[in-house]
Amino acid sequence: MNTRDYALGIDFGTESARALLVRISDGREAASQTYPYPHGVVEGRMPHGAPLPEGFALQHPRDYLEALEETVKAVLRKAGAGPGDVAGIGIDFTACTPLPVLADGTPLCLLPEFAKNPHAWVKLWKHHGALREAEDLNRAFRSAGGEWLARYGGAINLEWIFPKLLETHRKAPEVLEKADRYLEASDWVVWRLTGKEVRGSCAAGYKGCWLGDGYPPREELARVDPRFPALVDRLLGKTFLPAGRPAGGLTAEWARRLGLEEGTPVSAPIIDAHAAVPGCGVGESGRLVLILGTSGCHMMLGEKEILVPGIQGVVRDGILPGFYGYEAGQAALGDLFAWFAKNALPRDYAREAEARSLPPLALMEEKARAVPPGRTGLVALDWWNGNRSILIDPGLKGLILGYRMGTRPEQVFRALLEAAAFGTRVILDHFQDQGLPVKEVVATGGIAGKNALFLEILAHATGRTFHVARTDQACALGAAVFGAAAAGPERSGFQGVSQAARAMAGSPRATYEPDPAVKGIYDDLFALYMELHDHFGRGGTDLMKRIPPPG
Amino acid sequence: MNTRDYALGIDFGTESARALLVRISDGREAASQTYPYPHGVVEGRMPHGAPLPEGFALQHPRDYLEALEETVKAVLRKAGAGPGDVAGIGIDFTACTPLPVLADGTPLCLLPEFAKNPHAWVKLWKHHGALREAEDLNRAFRSAGGEWLARYGGAINLEWIFPKLLETHRKAPEVLEKADRYLEASDWVVWRLTGKEVRGSCAAGYKGCWLGDGYPPREELARVDPRFPALVDRLLGKTFLPAGRPAGGLTAEWARRLGLEEGTPVSAPIIDAHAAVPGCGVGESGRLVLILGTSGCHMMLGEKEILVPGIQGVVRDGILPGFYGYEAGQAALGDLFAWFAKNALPRDYAREAEARSLPPLALMEEKARAVPPGRTGLVALDWWNGNRSILIDPGLKGLILGYRMGTRPEQVFRALLEAAAFGTRVILDHFQDQGLPVKEVVATGGIAGKNALFLEILAHATGRTFHVARTDQACALGAAVFGAAAAGPERSGFQGVSQAARAMAGSPRATYEPDPAVKGIYDDLFALYMELHDHFGRGGTDLMKRIPPPG
Repeated sequence: MNTRDYALGIDFGTESARALLVRISDGREAASQTYPYPHGVVEGRMPHGAPLPEGFALQHPRDYLEALEETVKAVLRKAGAGPGDVAGIGIDFTACTPLPVLADGTPLCLLPEFAKNPHAWVKLWKHHGALREAEDLNRAFRSAGGEWLARYGGAINLEWIFPKLLETHRKAPEVLEKADRYLEASDWVVWRLTGKEVRGSCAAGYKGCWLGDGYPPREELARVDPRFPALVDRLLGKTFLPAGRPAGGLTAEWARRLGLEEGTPVSAPIIDAHAAVPGCGVGESGRLVLILGTSGCHMMLGEKEILVPGIQGVVRDGILPGFYGYEAGQAALGDLFAWFAKNALPRDYAREAEARSLPPLALMEEKARAVPPGRTGLVALDWWNGNRSILIDPGLKGLILGYRMGTRPEQVFRALLEAAAFGTRVILDHFQDQGLPVKEVVATGGIAGKNALFLEILAHATGRTFHVARTDQACALGAAVFGAAAAGPERSGFQGVSQAARAMAGSPRATYEPDPAVKGIYDDLFALYMELHDHFGRGGTDLMKRIPPPG
Repeated sequence: MNTRDYALGIDFGTESARALLVRISDGREAASQTYPYPHGVVEGRMPHGAPLPEGFALQHPRDYLEALEETVKAVLRKAGAGPGDVAGIGIDFTACTPLPVLADGTPLCLLPEFAKNPHAWVKLWKHHGALREAEDLNRAFRSAGGEWLARYGGAINLEWIFPKLLETHRKAPEVLEKADRYLEASDWVVWRLTGKEVRGSCAAGYKGCWLGDGYPPREELARVDPRFPALVDRLLGKTFLPAGRPAGGLTAEWARRLGLEEGTPVSAPIIDAHAAVPGCGVGESGRLVLILGTSGCHMMLGEKEILVPGIQGVVRDGILPGFYGYEAGQAALGDLFAWFAKNALPRDYAREAEARSLPPLALMEEKARAVPPGRTGLVALDWWNGNRSILIDPGLKGLILGYRMGTRPEQVFRALLEAAAFGTRVILDHFQDQGLPVKEVVATGGIAGKNALFLEILAHATGRTFHVARTDQACALGAAVFGAAAAGPERSGFQGVSQAARAMAGSPRATYEPDPAVKGIYDDLFALYMELHDHFGRGGTDLMKRIPPPG
């Protein structure tokens, strides 16, 4: 054995990339470096000045390669690590973020004749130009039977690869005629690093409609456009690897550019959120990983395939090799609290926060803590962004009920925290009801470490133990875990992802246990929440859909 | 004929009294003077320092007499009017505001042995010490049949005279043993001025359970306490006069104290809100007077008696002699907008209002005006104080539905304005459905002249023409109208209240006409409002009652 000291995780986000160099022995951070993309998110106008339609969100692929060079060299230097000290490299990436390339991997947008064509650029996950295409595809698939849609909760999303591919075909057919591949930026980056063309099974399964044994039937694909099956055949991937398996080793050129050994193993890539699962130390069924960000993402491992109604995605090898990965979501979490801070925080409270140098939400947490559990006098539905799981209905809306003349802002704020926790409970209970028991939850993400009151409410309201992951960088740490696993036992000492995850994720930094008495109070309030949930979201009335749109 | 130049209206409010001297010819204000009661509202502690239970709200009767002297002399001086220039005097008063007195009119609280007994003082309308008594009375009346309760929408209120009398009997029986009368402060003031003991039929009918031909049956009164019928017999009034009829003329002593002629006619008193009807120039059926204050009060005249379900009071001669007076209410109007300004106005808006020296609600009106009608993306129920008419259910709560991440404060604020206007529409439509058509509305009160947007929305949302009364002092002007009417044609030139009202109220200062196109938009939104109204308020679910109370 010749195990190395470090593993390297590289987390490609929306605005920047981050390299995290961690110690193999315990996963502790040795060095970290962030690099903001020089072109950022290309919105509104192209770099050469041409206007972009609303909803377009592009990126420049060269930014990713610059980020690799800048961040990796920096962390090696900071940690004093040499070329041979890194066992392996893992990559996580926002998805679905695809681009068209030639057979040698050259992005079309780097060819002079395509430089000004927005459809030749990387379409970032939040590019929303394919709304019409998503609607057309869903209609076509449903009319054709589309049983496979059940894995995705009944519909594909406008952010996924099929709508983006169809949009490019319709708006800029010359791009796809020239292109040889249409692939995730994560796959493209790994191809650059290793010279091997591999597709990560995570993005392919969750956002690429790769069903494990093929794409949806050709006749269904043909319903939307007779040329669509041929585009899928010719441009999308056919061989897939789960993260944690080596895609290949660093080429001589990239070894030099990064300051590492040639042949250093690079893992197949994974979607950023999914990397958080091993980043939180979860390598088995029964513990759910909850990413608490602007929205919420719930990830579970299962040993068997269950088509859970109302859950957005189930993909074999989608998170960890050998497991079915289940993904659910809450469309508004941090967003909901930020909405309050921006739109409903009264002047006197804002002044108090300023005088005490507190962030507004920290002040609201302090005041909301003084309101007894379940005693805001209010019940709310947390549907400010619609409902992702388990109703999968973006047309639903938020509600607050119970206002009195004495209703105070901290009661409203606490009611939103409680509603968001009830939204989580619906998902956990639903997993459990469908045969996937959720024994405990490991939380990570931007608001996990900052909002102790919300974590307490989550524990009491759901009746589960909530751990907060040791790191705020669970995605990058997860990528490093995959890098260590891909390196194999010779270089890392680990037999696989689960073992690496246990060793490197460490102990939670905080744990919240449910109190049975408080849980009892919340059970009663949750019954009211579910009455409203079912009345407005599940057949009682479609009134929320009939509100005239804001003008 | 020897008509005089002026009529005098005296408006006794909660914190102060106001005298308004107006010209008989056109009702224009000649002079006005306010006098804050030296003891104000006695809450928390008695003047001698003893603590008062929560909910107690007392007044000192001598304050009313001081207010008379101070304000009347001042307005005569300001206008340069002599003792013989005033045709008559009208009195309006907040109700129910009763006190116990001896046979000669001496208030018990002025006797040394009762000075420290709170039950010997005036109990102001908002004294809430008789909650238990109101519950006991309603239970007893219902169990006894209590058909007469239908005139009051099915229940008497804790602020009315029966609960206050029963509270005094239970808590301080020695007070009622000593007392010879238990009467409204308005009746007591008129008695002081004229030496004649008269009870105004308005307060007696709306708050005193005087049914026009007697009190409720003795056996029903006995259910709550066997001694209660005797107390009612001995202490409450038996002869009543509507406002506009002379109670008597000024005594020599009071003529001297006020600087007026002995014998100057004094009208029977009326409740303050009801005085606004002639103060707004309304002397016939078909035009509804709406007082827009912290809450809303809707008053209609009818030529026949209709027991309108869900309307709070119908009293013969209750507003104008010869008419049935109907009263309905919205529990939160100005209160609702003030709640928003206090609890939901965000910092940036508060800063903008300060920078531009605008009241916060004026800024919100400006921003809400830019939101198209019915296009807030929200629907609200305006039940922050429960629902007075037509559901008569104080346990109902406010609701806002339709929140999105993009929901802005001005959309929320406009949704509250629209909900309040829909609450008004429910009442107007209900009067109409029951055979009392509402052709147009005359609005007065604190927010009528200040919130043009709300008046516009009221017109469009209800499909009725809304006028804003010329004066902000519609109650005091109405009192002056009654004073002029009571003076009779010899002194005022008027044959009765209707004629005086037409001559003295003048033209509205603003008129808002409904736009059919906007009305159409609001008709659609009103349908959603009514779905929520009926679901939460009329049998769909009692969920609002099951929300745990705020802790």
